[in-house]
Amino acid sequence: MKKIINDPKQVVDESVAGFAIAHADLVRVETDPIYVVRADAPVAGKVGLVSGGGSGHEPLHAGYVGYGMLDAAVPGPVFTSPTPDPILAATKAVDGGAGVLHIVKNYTGDVLNFETAADLAAADGIEVRAVITNDDVAVKDSLYTAGRRGVAGTVLVEKIAGAAAQRGDNLDQVADIAERVNANARTMGLALTPCIVPHAGEPSFTLAEDEYELGIGIHGEPGRERLKLEPADKMVDRLLGPILEDLPYASGDRVLLFVNGMGGTPEVELFIAYKHAADVLAEKGITIERSLVGNYITSLEMQGMSITLLKLDDEFVELWDAPVQTPALRWGR
Amino acid sequence: MKKIINDPKQVVDESVAGFAIAHADLVRVETDPIYVVRADAPVAGKVGLVSGGGSGHEPLHAGYVGYGMLDAAVPGPVFTSPTPDPILAATKAVDGGAGVLHIVKNYTGDVLNFETAADLAAADGIEVRAVITNDDVAVKDSLYTAGRRGVAGTVLVEKIAGAAAQRGDNLDQVADIAERVNANARTMGLALTPCIVPHAGEPSFTLAEDEYELGIGIHGEPGRERLKLEPADKMVDRLLGPILEDLPYASGDRVLLFVNGMGGTPEVELFIAYKHAADVLAEKGITIERSLVGNYITSLEMQGMSITLLKLDDEFVELWDAPVQTPALRWGR
Repeated sequence: MKKIINDPKQVVDESVAGFAIAHADLVRVETDPIYVVRADAPVAGKVGLVSGGGSGHEPLHAGYVGYGMLDAAVPGPVFTSPTPDPILAATKAVDGGAGVLHIVKNYTGDVLNFETAADLAAADGIEVRAVITNDDVAVKDSLYTAGRRGVAGTVLVEKIAGAAAQRGDNLDQVADIAERVNANARTMGLALTPCIVPHAGEPSFTLAEDEYELGIGIHGEPGRERLKLEPADKMVDRLLGPILEDLPYASGDRVLLFVNGMGGTPEVELFIAYKHAADVLAEKGITIERSLVGNYITSLEMQGMSITLLKLDDEFVELWDAPVQTPALRWGR
Repeated sequence: MKKIINDPKQVVDESVAGFAIAHADLVRVETDPIYVVRADAPVAGKVGLVSGGGSGHEPLHAGYVGYGMLDAAVPGPVFTSPTPDPILAATKAVDGGAGVLHIVKNYTGDVLNFETAADLAAADGIEVRAVITNDDVAVKDSLYTAGRRGVAGTVLVEKIAGAAAQRGDNLDQVADIAERVNANARTMGLALTPCIVPHAGEPSFTLAEDEYELGIGIHGEPGRERLKLEPADKMVDRLLGPILEDLPYASGDRVLLFVNGMGGTPEVELFIAYKHAADVLAEKGITIERSLVGNYITSLEMQGMSITLLKLDDEFVELWDAPVQTPALRWGR
């Protein structure tokens, strides 16, 4: 296992401590229990947004804490859900009197622990709503999930719902927008290599030198099938096909095209994939109005990518373009 | 070789074509010869900044084209200098009448080809100055360089000199600031794994499962020594030691601490390294006033990192904080 770490058991604590120093202008970090919160939290009168989940997907979620996006992120151990305790603490810390929205990727542990935290927060008089993201079209159920997995679409939900909260929408309005983004987003991913969870010390799965896994989850859990390596354009076709059919997306639609790196794939490859995806969408009469290309929700050092389409309307575009100031997404302010 | 590519010979062309579509709001791309230029170039009366070099280091340099940073970037083939022809074309394209600054990493091919392009531009009546970056403390000469290599400090030179040009400094002033940033920046890197140049198809070097290379260059060229894997804190000590001694940096100094990923190292590891570097600097009485952590100058999918220190003064801080709007660095506007 080749990693820049000290004690495998201290990976998350040490990393978050570094993150806190590097981004002290935007966030502060609580350590007992551990969570990352906007430096100016709670923002009075604003709906608070809390997300979280296992670590190893950085910059998700802590990288999205700040003005116009999340109010707090709760990092669990690598690829393991945080317990209800820090989720509850984060929920309380961001409650500015307008209620709190939990944005939860559909993984069984996350869903359960966020639910428990929401119940405890409600008992303390905080109004909480939850949105479960489940944008992955690859598999119906998976190793860690009943129903579809919540993957890269979550980044778009956090940005757009975060902008809605920032402009002053109430809890029901912010939750409805988050639900609507999730309902209009579809994702599928692939992996060329596995990744190694530090405390496990060995790859989560194996792939032959000439194979890749289509429909992979963000923890390396199995996808649809194992295929022989093929050209990038063909890989993109295999991701885009099921995505386009699923909503479905159709000629005349306006979309955000999001090509996400799994952590170990160089940017030069992501833009090759983006290019072909753009060509395919153009052929189908689908207009790309916004784009996002880079490592935004990762699986440690896994080589691979996912493609996400979000069907846009005027409100989504306005909220996407709205100012955001977080460690990993920053513009317009 | 596991990569998301089509034809290895088309990697740069296809990737840049995708980049052009994804970032059409900020840049446009010329294809014959190939270069990336600010959408609004040339900016009348502003000094133009041009950088470039072999591809495979993304987001450097094309990711830094835009308001407040570079006016153009010239991508060569992977790990190979661009020829004078596209450098000349880019220089002409960004000349707003106030002259053009070339920012060139100290690699022999880049230095020669930028010199030739500058001579040709001068013959066409464009005033050109060049700044050669050489911030790498690891080795005196290397496989591709006479003198020290230009590495991650280049990103800081481009940002700060770009801000000086944007505020209206003249060519000599912008060049002087670029020289001064380079003179106050020191970098050293390490690699845990090699990378594979697409048209070569195999790793540029080999490292045993328990080894890393200290003092690596950004093309995988050899560094100082090969060491057995050790804890992150020890690796950081081995990078920071030579950096601190070299300028030298001393108690009372204000610095920008830049922990850069080589492409294949997850963010969670970079922040662990950042944390220890911050602790070491605090012990030495050196104040971190600004930070940058992430993949900003890479070596394809190489796992590894570099650490850069820039000694700050008030002007550097003001120019660092100034608005920037590029694909890879965006804030304040």
